[in-house]
This record gives sequence, C-alpha cells and structure tokens, in this order.
Amino acid sequence: MNADTGLLSLVWAGSGVDAMLADEAWVAAMLDVEVALARTQARLGVLPADAVEPIAAAAASVRVDVAGLAVRARGSANPVVELVRELTAAVDGDAAAYVHLGSTSQDILDTAAMLLTARALRATDAALSTVADGLAGLVAEYRHTTMAARTLTQHAVPTTFGLKAAGWLHGVLDAADRLRHTLDTLPVQVGGAAGTLAAYVEYAGRVDGHAAALTEGIAAELGLRPGPPWHTRRTPLVDVGWVVVAVTGALGKLALDVLGATRTEVGEVVEPSGGISSAMPQKQNPALATMIMSAARQAPAYAQLLAQSMLAEDERSPGGWQSEWQPLRDALRLACGAATTAVQLVDGMRVVPERLAANLALSGGTIVAERLTVALTPVLGKAAAKKLLARIATADGGTFEHRLRAAPELASLDDATLTDLLNPANYLGAADELIDQALARHRATPAPRAPH
Amino acid sequence: MNADTGLLSLVWAGSGVDAMLADEAWVAAMLDVEVALARTQARLGVLPADAVEPIAAAAASVRVDVAGLAVRARGSANPVVELVRELTAAVDGDAAAYVHLGSTSQDILDTAAMLLTARALRATDAALSTVADGLAGLVAEYRHTTMAARTLTQHAVPTTFGLKAAGWLHGVLDAADRLRHTLDTLPVQVGGAAGTLAAYVEYAGRVDGHAAALTEGIAAELGLRPGPPWHTRRTPLVDVGWVVVAVTGALGKLALDVLGATRTEVGEVVEPSGGISSAMPQKQNPALATMIMSAARQAPAYAQLLAQSMLAEDERSPGGWQSEWQPLRDALRLACGAATTAVQLVDGMRVVPERLAANLALSGGTIVAERLTVALTPVLGKAAAKKLLARIATADGGTFEHRLRAAPELASLDDATLTDLLNPANYLGAADELIDQALARHRATPAPRAPH
Amino acid sequence: MNADTGLLSLVWAGSGVDAMLADEAWVAAMLDVEVALARTQARLGVLPADAVEPIAAAAASVRVDVAGLAVRARGSANPVVELVRELTAAVDGDAAAYVHLGSTSQDILDTAAMLLTARALRATDAALSTVADGLAGLVAEYRHTTMAARTLTQHAVPTTFGLKAAGWLHGVLDAADRLRHTLDTLPVQVGGAAGTLAAYVEYAGRVDGHAAALTEGIAAELGLRPGPPWHTRRTPLVDVGWVVVAVTGALGKLALDVLGATRTEVGEVVEPSGGISSAMPQKQNPALATMIMSAARQAPAYAQLLAQSMLAEDERSPGGWQSEWQPLRDALRLACGAATTAVQLVDGMRVVPERLAANLALSGGTIVAERLTVALTPVLGKAAAKKLLARIATADGGTFEHRLRAAPELASLDDATLTDLLNPANYLGAADELIDQALARHRATPAPRAPH
Amino acid sequence: MNADTGLLSLVWAGSGVDAMLADEAWVAAMLDVEVALARTQARLGVLPADAVEPIAAAAASVRVDVAGLAVRARGSANPVVELVRELTAAVDGDAAAYVHLGSTSQDILDTAAMLLTARALRATDAALSTVADGLAGLVAEYRHTTMAARTLTQHAVPTTFGLKAAGWLHGVLDAADRLRHTLDTLPVQVGGAAGTLAAYVEYAGRVDGHAAALTEGIAAELGLRPGPPWHTRRTPLVDVGWVVVAVTGALGKLALDVLGATRTEVGEVVEPSGGISSAMPQKQNPALATMIMSAARQAPAYAQLLAQSMLAEDERSPGGWQSEWQPLRDALRLACGAATTAVQLVDGMRVVPERLAANLALSGGTIVAERLTVALTPVLGKAAAKKLLARIATADGGTFEHRLRAAPELASLDDATLTDLLNPANYLGAADELIDQALARHRATPAPRAPH
Repeated sequence: MNADTGLLSLVWAGSGVDAMLADEAWVAAMLDVEVALARTQARLGVLPADAVEPIAAAAASVRVDVAGLAVRARGSANPVVELVRELTAAVDGDAAAYVHLGSTSQDILDTAAMLLTARALRATDAALSTVADGLAGLVAEYRHTTMAARTLTQHAVPTTFGLKAAGWLHGVLDAADRLRHTLDTLPVQVGGAAGTLAAYVEYAGRVDGHAAALTEGIAAELGLRPGPPWHTRRTPLVDVGWVVVAVTGALGKLALDVLGATRTEVGEVVEPSGGISSAMPQKQNPALATMIMSAARQAPAYAQLLAQSMLAEDERSPGGWQSEWQPLRDALRLACGAATTAVQLVDGMRVVPERLAANLALSGGTIVAERLTVALTPVLGKAAAKKLLARIATADGGTFEHRLRAAPELASLDDATLTDLLNPANYLGAADELIDQALARHRATPAPRAPH
Repeated sequence: MNADTGLLSLVWAGSGVDAMLADEAWVAAMLDVEVALARTQARLGVLPADAVEPIAAAAASVRVDVAGLAVRARGSANPVVELVRELTAAVDGDAAAYVHLGSTSQDILDTAAMLLTARALRATDAALSTVADGLAGLVAEYRHTTMAARTLTQHAVPTTFGLKAAGWLHGVLDAADRLRHTLDTLPVQVGGAAGTLAAYVEYAGRVDGHAAALTEGIAAELGLRPGPPWHTRRTPLVDVGWVVVAVTGALGKLALDVLGATRTEVGEVVEPSGGISSAMPQKQNPALATMIMSAARQAPAYAQLLAQSMLAEDERSPGGWQSEWQPLRDALRLACGAATTAVQLVDGMRVVPERLAANLALSGGTIVAERLTVALTPVLGKAAAKKLLARIATADGGTFEHRLRAAPELASLDDATLTDLLNPANYLGAADELIDQALARHRATPAPRAPH
Repeated sequence: MNADTGLLSLVWAGSGVDAMLADEAWVAAMLDVEVALARTQARLGVLPADAVEPIAAAAASVRVDVAGLAVRARGSANPVVELVRELTAAVDGDAAAYVHLGSTSQDILDTAAMLLTARALRATDAALSTVADGLAGLVAEYRHTTMAARTLTQHAVPTTFGLKAAGWLHGVLDAADRLRHTLDTLPVQVGGAAGTLAAYVEYAGRVDGHAAALTEGIAAELGLRPGPPWHTRRTPLVDVGWVVVAVTGALGKLALDVLGATRTEVGEVVEPSGGISSAMPQKQNPALATMIMSAARQAPAYAQLLAQSMLAEDERSPGGWQSEWQPLRDALRLACGAATTAVQLVDGMRVVPERLAANLALSGGTIVAERLTVALTPVLGKAAAKKLLARIATADGGTFEHRLRAAPELASLDDATLTDLLNPANYLGAADELIDQALARHRATPAPRAPH
Repeated sequence: MNADTGLLSLVWAGSGVDAMLADEAWVAAMLDVEVALARTQARLGVLPADAVEPIAAAAASVRVDVAGLAVRARGSANPVVELVRELTAAVDGDAAAYVHLGSTSQDILDTAAMLLTARALRATDAALSTVADGLAGLVAEYRHTTMAARTLTQHAVPTTFGLKAAGWLHGVLDAADRLRHTLDTLPVQVGGAAGTLAAYVEYAGRVDGHAAALTEGIAAELGLRPGPPWHTRRTPLVDVGWVVVAVTGALGKLALDVLGATRTEVGEVVEPSGGISSAMPQKQNPALATMIMSAARQAPAYAQLLAQSMLAEDERSPGGWQSEWQPLRDALRLACGAATTAVQLVDGMRVVPERLAANLALSGGTIVAERLTVALTPVLGKAAAKKLLARIATADGGTFEHRLRAAPELASLDDATLTDLLNPANYLGAADELIDQALARHRATPAPRAPH
C-alpha cells in the first residue's frame, strides 16, 4: 500500500521532501537519535566505548516493517517502544543492553522530529534563496516597466512590474529571515521519563552537570541546539508553524498575483508551461501557481494545530503529543513543496509587456486622476479638486483626456503640462527608491548554509 | 517509499480506513467512476454497448505507478488527465475512443472523492453503532452506581456512572444522526468542463433531458445522489467536515472523561490493556483514549479547511480545489480511526466501583450541600440557607457532618432526616428518567445500512 | 466605552444583528430565561403563582451595568451568578426567594445563547430568502445571456450568466436548508448543577417525570426544543458552526465571483454604488462584495472554535465553556451581516451584457474548441481531434477561425457547419435544463417562518 | 449599546486592554497617525509649519460617533474615508487642506493597528514579566518539594514542584522572547494609494529620498519601525499571531496544570480565591485558570486568521484586509487578558505540600520502579530487570515494598540500600541543575522597556 505519495497534494509530489519526511525517514531519524545517544553516553563514560559500533551497525541495517510497526505502536500510543525493541533485537552481543539507556520515547521522537524539521527547513531555505534570486532578477529587469496597480480589484495608480516583484521579494526575504531564526533554535529533547533526566543521571553515576553534558553532546552529534526539556513546553512547534505560514504565505501571495495576471482578460503573465486540461484542447492552465496556492490555503490550519500543542498536560500529554506528528509533517511538506514549485514558477514565468501596457491604457488616463488632484490642489483646493476629478472621471462622452481638456477649471494648465500629467510613467512616486531598497536587502541576505 | 502508513497517526493505523483511503484506493475509485460513466453512456446510447467491457476490463487490470502518476499530475495540477491517458492506453481496440467521453477531471475526481467518503462514513457508522451498543450496556449496568459529578474540576453533586455513560451515548447518537443525514446526500459530480455538461450533451446528440438522465444513471451506478454540478459550490465538503467534528468530538468527549477517570489519583476507570512505557515498568497508559484524543484535537482544523473550500473562484478554483483532497482524506481517517479505536475502548474498559464510591466520599458529604440548601430553604430562606451551608462546608474542625449536626440552625432536622439528606444516593434528581430517555433513543436508532 | 460597534467588522455594522447580539442583549436574554423558568415552575406548582409577576417585572426593569457585571463575573468565571444577584435584589417582596430556583449558571447562559442564536438565524434566514429571490430573478433575466466560463483562471467553454447565477442560488438554498434544519433543533438547557436536575426535582417534591415537564415547559415558553442536558455535549454549537460556514461560504462564493467580474479588465458586473476611496477620485470600489468576502474568510475559524467545544471535561468544562461565547456571537454576526449585505449587493448589482459579450469574443473562438473536438471525433478519432485543435488553438498567425478554415483536416466541414460550431450560443449544453432545475428548487423552498 | 464589554470574554474584562483596544481607541489611534503624518510633512517642508497645530487640535477635540462612523464606513469598506472627512471638517481655517495629504486609508489604519498592537504587547510584556517573577519565586521556594510527575495521566517518576514551576517559567520566557522580537519590528505603513507613495512624493515636489524621509519621520513620531510598504505583504500580522499563541500557550499550559492540580482528588494547588457557584454552596472554582484556559483554547484560531492575511490580492485586498481587524483585536485582547489574569493566579495560588506528599505516596513506591530497574541492571541485565519490576509493580498482595523485599532476585540489595532506592527524594535526577538553569535564564532576561 502506497498510502500517500503526494497524489492528493501535488505541490510536494516528487520534490524530495516526500522522501525526506516519509514514514521510513521518521524511523531512520529515530534510529539516528538512538545512535547519537549511545555515542554521547560512551564519550561520557556511561557505557563502554565498544558498545557503540554494534548499536550503530544495527541501526544502519535493521529492516523495519513500518506499517507493522505502526499497528504495534498502538499498544503504547507511540512508535518508539516497539522500534527500540526491534533495534535491541538487532544488536549483536552485550551491546544490546546499552540501547536507549535511561531514555524515554519522547526524547527519541521529539529529537527525530527536530532533525527532520531541520532538514526540511534547510531544503526550503535553499529553494527560497533561488526564488529570491529569480525575483531580484525580475525586479531589475522590469524596473521601468509601468503597469496598473489595483486596489479592491480596480485600477488605482500606476506602478511598475519591478516594484510589484520587489513586494514579492520582500515577502520571500521575510520568510527566509523567520526560517533561519527558527532553524538556529531547533532543540534536542533530552529529559528522560518526565523531564528530570533521572535515569540518565542514575546510569551516569549521579555526577554533577550530567544534564548539560548529555544534552550538549547529543545536540552536537545531531546539529541541533541544547536546552532544557520541553516535553510539555511546545514552543518549538509554535515556531515551526510560524515559519510555515510565513513561507507559504509569501509564496501564496506571489501565486495569487500570478493567477490574477494570467486571467484570460488580463494576460500579463504566462506560466512556464501551461497545464493541460482533460477536456479543453486550448487551455493553458497556471498549474504551478495553482499548486502553490493550494499549499498557502492549507498551511495556516496546520500552523494552528501546531500552536494547539502548547496545551500539553502534566509531564506528557495524552493526545496532545500524538496530535502533533502528522500536522508537523504536512506543514513542512507544504512549505517545502511550495518553495520548490515556486522555483519552477519564477524561473520560467514570462511577463508580457504589451499586455501590461494595454491594460494600463484601459482606463483612458483616469489612473492618474490622483496626480491631477495634486496638481490642481494649489488652484482649486484639495477637496474641490478631488470632487472635480471624480466628476470628470466618471462622466460620459468622449475620453477622460477630452473631458479634461474641455473643463474650464483646467484652463490654467497648458497642453504640455497636461500631457505630462497624464503620462503614467511620470507618476511612479518612489518606485525607484523602493526597488533599490529591496535589491539592497536581497544583496545583504547571506546565502543559505550548507546542510550539517 | 511508504510515505504514510499511520506511523504518525496511530489512531487509524491498521483500522482498515488506511487502505480504504490510500492513494491506490483513490486511483481505483477514479477508475470506477470512468467505468460508471461509460456504462451509463452506453445505456443511454451515447457509446456502443460493446465498448463498455473493454473499458471495465482495462480499469480492472491497469497497473498504475501511483508515485509516478503524482509527479506527472503536476503538469495539469490534477491526477485525472494522466490517469485517463493510462486507462485509455490500456483499453483494447476501438473502445479506447470512448474513455472519459465528454468528461472533465473534476467530474471524475469529485465523484471518486464522494465514493470514498461514502465508504469511510459507512465504516465509521458501523463502528459508531458498536460503540453506541457498548455504551448502552454501560448505561444499563451502572444505572444505580453513584459517583461524584465534577464541574470546573471540583466535586459538584452526585450523579451515576450510568448517567455519565448516557451523556456519551447521546453524543455518539448525535454524531450518527449527522453522519447518516450527510451520507444520504453525497452527490455525484456531473458537470463537464464548466458545469454545462456541454460535451456530454454534444456526444449525446443534444437530446433533451440528457443532464438528468446521465447524472441519475451515474449516481445509480455508484450509490450516490444525483444533483446539479457543484464544481464551485462545495457544500458537500462542508457537510463532511460537520460530520467529522461531530464524530470525533463525541468520541473525544468520551476519551477526555476516560483520561480524567484514569488519573492515578482518580482511578475510576481502567483501559482494556494499559499501554506500555519505554522507560517505566509500572506504567499502564490509557493508550486508546490517548489516540482518540489525538483525533479529536485535530479534526476541527480539517473541517475548517473543508469549509474554506466554499471560496472557489469562477467555474473551477485554481488552488481551492487542490487544497481539499488531503484534508478530506485526513478528516475521514481521523473520524473512522477514532470510531474503530473507541470500539476497543468501550468494549474493554473496566469501571472500578470502589473508586467511584471512595471518591464520592472524599468531600465528606459537602457534595450534597446543594440539597441541604433546598431542605433548609423553607426554614431559613434560600439566600440564608446557601450562606449557612457555604460557611459550614468550608469551615475547619471535624467533619462536615459533625459541623452540620452541631449547627443550631439545623436543630429542627432530626437525625434520620439528616442522615437521609446526606446520602448521595438520595440526591440523584432525574437520573433515572434521563437514563430511560437515553436508552429509548438508542433503541429507536436503526442499525447502520449495509454498504451499497 | 463603545468597545465594539462594528467599526472593525463593517459587514454587520448597522445591520440589526449588532444590537441583537450586543452584551445588553445577552443580559436581556438571560433574564428572559429566568422568567421562563419561574413561569414554568409556577405552572408546575413548584413556586406560588403570584411570585411570577414580581420576577418578570424586575427582569423588565432592572438596570444592569454590563461592563461592571463583566468585571464582577470574573469571580465565578461566568456572568450568571452576579446577574442573578442583581435580579434577586430587584424583585419586590417574597418572590425574590423564587428567582433561579434549583437552577445553575449554565442552564441560564446556554439557553440564552440558543435564544439569541435562534433570533440571529431567523434574521439570517429572512435575508437569505431575499437574496435567493433576487438571484432567481437574475437567473431568469439572464437565462440566455452567454458569457465565458473560466476554469483555473482561463476561458474554458461558454455558459450563461443565468446559469452562473443559478449556481449562486443553489448555494444559498443549500445554506438555507442547513440553517432551517438547525433552527428546528436548537435546544433548551435544563440540567441543574451537573445534569441530574437534582435541585429542580427536589424543589418540585421529587415528583416523577419532572425533568420532562420542566424542560418541555421552558422550551415552549422560549420557542426552543426540549431535550436532555448538554452541558458537556456541545453538538448544538457544532451545528451552528456548520450553518455559519454554509451561509458565509455560499455568499462568499457570490462575492468572490462578483469581485472577479468587477475587475477593471473584466467589467462584467458593477456594484450598486461604488465604494469611495480616500485617495483616488476615479475609484468605484466593490465595497459590498469586499465586506461579504471578509465575513467568508473569517467564518471557518469561528466554526472551528465552536467545534472544539466538544472537548468539554466532566460535567462542566473549565475554559471550554468560556471559550464558546465570543466565537458564537462573532460567527452569528458574520453570517447575518453577510446575508444582509448580500441583499444589498444582489438587489443593486448591475450586469453589463456588452462586456460579457466582448470578453466571450476575446479568445477568438477557441472557447468552443472542445465542441470542435466533439464534432471532429467521428472523422479523426477523439485523441487526434483534440491534438489537432490544441495545435490550431495555440498556433500563431491569423485568427483561430482563419486557421480552422485553412486546416485540411477540417475540409469536410462546410462553412455553415463551421459557423454554427463556432457560435458560443450553440454550445451551452444543458444550461437551460439546469436553470429550470434551479428555479424549480427555489419555488419549492418555503418562505422563512415568522419569528416566534 | 455596549456591544462588547468583555461579558462574553471575561479573561480581559476590566484588564485595561478592553479600553486600550476599544473602537474609540482605534479612532484615536488613527487620528494620532494623521497628526504624525502632518507633523512629519511639516518638518519636511511639504506643508506649512502652522498647519500642524490646527490639525492636532482638531484630532484631540473631534467627537466621533463611532457607531455612526461604522455604518457610514460601509460605503468604502473601511473607516478611514469618513474619519478623514470628520477630522477635516473639525480643522480650523486653511490647515484643513493639509489633512491626510497624499495619504490613503490603508496607511492610516495599518499604522494605527501597529500602534495599538505595540501598546497591547507592551502591557502584555509587563504582565508576563510579573508572572515570570512570581514563577521564579515558586521555583526557588519549592525547589526541594518532591511530587509525582505524571505522563499520559499516570504517575511516572518523582519530580519537584520547583522543577514543574521552572517549566512554566521557561514557557513564559519563551513567550516574552518572541513578544520582544516582534515588538522591535512592528512597522509603520507608508505606501500611498498603491505602494509607490506617489501622491506623497508629488506633494513633496518629487525630491529624492522622500520615501525614506517620510517613513522614518512618521515611524519616529510613533515609536514604530520604518520599512517598505506592506499593503499586501502581511508578515507583521503573521508575527503578531505567533506571539499571541506563544503567550496564551505558555499561560494555558500553566492554567492546564493548575486545573489538574486543583481537582478534588488531587488538591495540590488552590486558587487565590475560589470562584463562586450559583448552585452549590461548597464549590471553590478555579476561576482564574478557567479564564486563562478559555484564552488559550481560542488564540490559535485567531493566529490562523492573521496568517491567512498573507493571501492578499494585488496592491490592496478586497476582503482580506477587512478580515484582519477584528481577529487582530481579539487576539491581542486574549493575550493581554491571559497575562493579566495570570498575574493574579501566580500571585495568589497556594501550593499544598501535604497533598503533594500524599499523592506521591499513593503508588506505594512504584513511582521509583525505573530507578530500581537501573539499580538491578548490573545484576540482572536491563531487560530482565525491567520485566521483573513490571511484574512486582503490578502484582497483588502486600505493598510494593513488601513484595520487593520478598523477591529472591533482590536478595543482594541490603535493607538500607533498598530504603534509599525507594525514597523518591533520592530520584530527582538533574532537577537541581535544571532549576539553576531556569533561574539563571530568568535573571538574564531584561525588564520590559517602559512604553514609548
């Protein structure tokens, strides 16, 4: 049975994050944690140095029937008990006695979850970085390409495609900032049965400072951060949810604008390769933006589930803990899938300058009515100017320009001035300054670190 | 790769709903819909009668690489286009030309989704029915077993375990009512490219009434309801979300109470087989209630995602539609898994009458303070009676009963009356009447229908 | 302090639902429940008949400082204790002893909540009914007005504006069906301190059948349904959430399509009176659709909160119960506000047939490419036909029609046939049949009942 | 009409955050922004210096009918247009022409929203700081008070009340960290009609660098951060949601544990003043924890709504923007209300050491079974030791200690050793080390900054 290959969540199908977070990957990560624990305990003298390799060898070679493990895991409401049993059985000789020494299920599963989270966030970061580079390219390329800005669905004032892309770029950089902030804090979980590390300490002969030594040792092995136990202090999951909504939200904003721009009537952007239709031969569907949008619409609900994890009873929650795992995976899959899909979208999307220009002209010049108000304010006062422009803009008969030139109130403006005022390219405000600012921010953003 | 066997969502691992809703099952259901379409079109004379069997044979025998299909499906942002290609290639001879005739991806996928929903809801209904039977047994068995009712964590007044179980039973019957209401309305999707059925009608030679004939025919083939196209009118998904929260909520309430009752200090209920711990040999964890709780904590977020589906643009939503599939599956898995897990819980849970009695006695009689207020109201007035009881209940020194007997205000009550008033079993209000009502409702609820 | 007049949720500002669900209205509804309780108890002989009028008079005249009440209510984490104190103090003479007799805070607050819910749903139902009438008018008026159907943002096949409106109409009727189903089941809450009705029964002298008599009496007084206590069985809240998402979702779909249609480039629909802009004199914003959309985006989160209520501990939940009240109010305000705003939108929106026609022509005929495939299938086979049409549709040079006429594969089609095939009005499939079906459903829907 | 005084959300009633975020406060904040804009523009020479005071005076004195404003605001789907009209009318003389110069509704409303957010977060920070101090006091006071740790509802191993409080403290410090991180980044919104600042720049005579100058000026006036326009890049709202769930989650965890500890059977903690019941004279309800819990259950849904804001179309979202305001207010009210309520809870809660001790003894020593396993591992091997202990722990007859002393496998342990092993106070692992770590973190956390 292939329960979940991405068929129902195409945004991450085949992206790499599917295998990275598959059930097998969770099993492998839990085994990694068991090995890191043994290695650290050996270094601290808690177990014999020669016990490590048999444990590591067994972890590398044990063949786990994941579906069977899942069913047996129902006995304890977590998969670690049975996995430890299988690992222990696979270890040769006396070393078996040192598997999972002093540990508890939640230490293993939570640490494995953070390990997988780190991997998925790093892959997401790398994709985001490529997306940002692509967007910075669009910003520069279309810095001077004027187009209509829309507010509440209506043409508002002119802007440039470069500035629009700069907005997307800022969003992606916001997301990358938050991702990296969180990536730096993903903690190892080392608490023992109930957060006192009692059995760990007992096996270590009750030496002082063992909590710190053990926690830092395992953290270093796995590339995570040391810290106090968080069995029922689930802030790390809240943080992951925050990152996931920032990432999918920034990319969802991009996708939403692309979808708007690809509407048949708008046509300002074309996707790299139009999606195909099962019914209509002429259709070229924006399949990439569609998939990114599907991730962005779902992610906040998963982040909410992760936030709910904070309500964890006592020293381990019955049901709270178990309700985190699937939403954590799904949240990470959506973020990473959206980012890898956005790489394809930004890489291949085609901007159609002639449609940008044609649409900008659609309103017959009313798109600069605000500017005319500014120009007429010294003459008529602001309120009267705005009222006049509203009347002329929405009147019938002739073009807006004709009606303007015919208005006695505008007689003081000479032809050249009016022509200048009506040119959308002359009413771009601080677009250039804002573009410089966005590109500077992009240049100042370091490249993603290579994986641990 | 086994991406999702339930390892991260143990509540449904091995329950049957895993296979029922796996990616392969979705592929199979989509093929079922294609066959139902062909069969109906043949019956209506739209395609030759002898084209049906080759299509059905191909649907039964085609081997789909689901993971590969998922990746290729990214080209159109839905899996149907590629699946139709594979099916068509597998059909022998001229019949291939009649595959998916006049159809569109959304007709196939939505109808398949409803088919799978119907199956999962029927399985859930059957499990709920068993749960209800088990709860009715508890109601009857513990009709007269008094215990403490708690409000805001504190002992409030006496109740019976039977009445408590009657509350759970009502919840499960509420859920079953809503499930069946929805099961009766799950609609087939037959709309063609954009809800006009244009190509279907064209292939049918533009006969009158073809929409109704085709829709009713396919619905009858698949055991769903006919109705107008709902490509961007997603009420059926809202309904499924409603059912899922009613089911998981009712079972979650049961689990929440079981978890409270199994606390070491309370000990009123023991789970069938205590879950095992990886660290602590003495632990007997309430693993079943824990898993049910995990479903109940998650389900509302999935229902919310299904509700968001209503915001579907135009005649097909770019991203809205794609964001439904995974949440729909997860919602159904949680509901069905919670129900099958609850069968185990109710079947095996052990009530501990001596702990119910011991806890009821804990408060030294203050649990009937409300009753004493009622009894003293004719003498002292209600407000004074309540004030007096509050003072006696929270005073120090001796037991509540001693302090009562020493209070001059109670001198008018003879010993036998006070003894009677202090007996929790005499202050059960309408418990019996309410239990009769619950059992009558259970008896009046029909058995689940056999699957189609 | 006017904490919440709708300034931050304009969709319901001034709609009537603001006053209907204001804090004062909650206080008034709780007082109504106290009076209904007293009246019923008097009829059942539990309290003297002449105690009722002083209680009713006090309830009608007591001046409650709501903000002060809220602060004092923190002492018990619910507002009823203090409100009962104020009511009791306001009752003249001996009748004060009969206020809230045998009752508990949750009986009063939950019943009041259902009373307010019933009022808000009835107002919503009335508005929905007007919306449905308006939409039915649009369906009939634009039955034959062809336009482009869009899927995944692209022109797909022709449809009619009437059929589009029929889709909206079905959505609204779906919502009304669910609203009425729920309105018929809103239950009174009569359980006493912990669901046994013990004090009620005690005051009534422990007569048989008092639970039913009391519950039915209060329900009849208030126009709600009798039933067993539901202190920690919160199905009614799940049902309200279901209704609210069905209502706001159906109206949100309408608003979403209106927003798409009012885009400057599309221009197929104009709102009754364009919203004004603080900056741009020419702007005519779709303010009504914008506000409806704001409700539709929020409502699923509130429904989720209501669904979470199911996880209610013991016989009264510490925190669960308290987390229902504000979301219940907000959910109802959004639904009712969206419905009353939709009345304005549907009443005044203007369809622009010439833009519908112009947009339909935009694709130069490729919008009927599916039909041409059907027509060519007998000649070329389905796959080859689809391939050919895709090639011609996406080729450069000349119009689609020219390229078609030049294609040797189409030589067999005479000019008249091709002209007919290219006419979008000839490719509307079952639009007429589906419109008849929608209008029939609308006619068969009864008018909303008058309020109780 | 007092629509919302906190009657339905007692957690913040009377806390100060009610007035801080009331509709009037939003109006006042928007007026503050208009004044800051005028002041900055005067400083930059865009408007005459003597125009500022009349505007400021009008802003200070204008009497706004908020409810009426809300209704009129429906015309533009935002409250700014009408407010600017009222402000302008209130300005004496020529200065009226300089109100809202070059600005747009979203600049005013978004900046006001950030101003209010900053205030609410600062109040929350101050309360959190007091909570943290109180918790640090509990950590120190109960450092050596042993108690039972519970996992999945069952006694697991010993811990100390001090370490439990240290977990709460870490949670609160996590929340404060995230709050301050976000507080430092709350941005001013200065974008003009569509993010180009065009009219601002035009009024400023198109000088270079005006975007930066204006943005930095307004930011400095209001104590917010300058930055590029974020009309449809809603990361700041995602950040607020993150903070709110971290705060309410950390406090909700505290409340959840307090609720568990106050159960009648547990009795380890008593709330400062027990909440009163309308029915039961003896009840002492944990009202504060109940109210905090109500906030924690709701907050994730509001954070989700804020996260959904990221899907904002074009340069201003029709409906997205409008769906942020109410959830933003409610999210902040819940966080601040939970924090101020937690101050009361932590300040007054009473720990009951004798109940901690009695409960710890409940399990007859099996709570140290893990430790015995460790002790016996050298003798019996780990697996055999665990099996043996499980058998002895769950056997019948005598106490656990008796059965241990009778077990032949334990014959090697002398009496004193066994007595030592059975003492829970000797099996606290790294509790002391972890407590030191928590207190050190608390000491290293700076005090909240005074409000701007």
